[in-house]
Amino acid sequence: MQPVERFDPAGLEILDERECLRLLRSVAVGRLVFTQGGLPAVRLVNFGLDGDTIVFASGGGEKLRAAERGDVVAFEVDDIDAERHFGWTVTSVGHLSVVAPDEAALLERTMPLRSWAPLRNRRLIRLGTESLTGRRLPG
Amino acid sequence: MQPVERFDPAGLEILDERECLRLLRSVAVGRLVFTQGGLPAVRLVNFGLDGDTIVFASGGGEKLRAAERGDVVAFEVDDIDAERHFGWTVTSVGHLSVVAPDEAALLERTMPLRSWAPLRNRRLIRLGTESLTGRRLPG
Repeated sequence: MQPVERFDPAGLEILDERECLRLLRSVAVGRLVFTQGGLPAVRLVNFGLDGDTIVFASGGGEKLRAAERGDVVAFEVDDIDAERHFGWTVTSVGHLSVVAPDEAALLERTMPLRSWAPLRNRRLIRLGTESLTGRRLPG
Repeated sequence: MQPVERFDPAGLEILDERECLRLLRSVAVGRLVFTQGGLPAVRLVNFGLDGDTIVFASGGGEKLRAAERGDVVAFEVDDIDAERHFGWTVTSVGHLSVVAPDEAALLERTMPLRSWAPLRNRRLIRLGTESLTGRRLPG
């Protein structure tokens, strides 16, 4: 049986959770959208998936503080072909948390998590997916 | 005289406003980060620059409502080479507004603003840049 295709008011295809998770697995870099000093901020992060949760490494700084506070954040991945006007975007929304040291040690052995820059006080941060949504421009 | 190079605590190069604006001009698609039902949401948009303000087209829906409310939002563009571990990201933060019809008509003649899908009630939305920040991974 074919899945029911759905489109939003702008004509973009609404992707189901299974397709969102598949696309999330297909890329290595995403954009963490969080709040810094009350204003929205975006940072590129390399990430891995542990089940349906997103895991990435961080040194100190604003990302770690957001995780310690348990902030609700968004994490976006996409693939765009601006020339051919084709693309998709998937966004996960949920709470950040700091991964406990023993669990982090286990994840570091099984998951290749490069950071964009050398980190002095490397910690792992987890985003527990509570909402997973996506859109695709029909080709 | 060489500009002073600056790096953030994670070792990423902090880009000045002039470089951010240059990079913003180099791409056609960005990510609008706004709030939908109290949660962060991300949408891909084709955009143009009118001075240092970001202009894009929208039909009705959440983006237009955010503009009518004058929401503070973020708009992110980037270029990533995940294989070679190289990239930059630029984020503009400011208030959204709906462009008045006569000004929109003028902009539509001078700026190629494709939307990702056909729009029934096409309106132009402007993001007035109040903060422009960027990071680059030193190659």
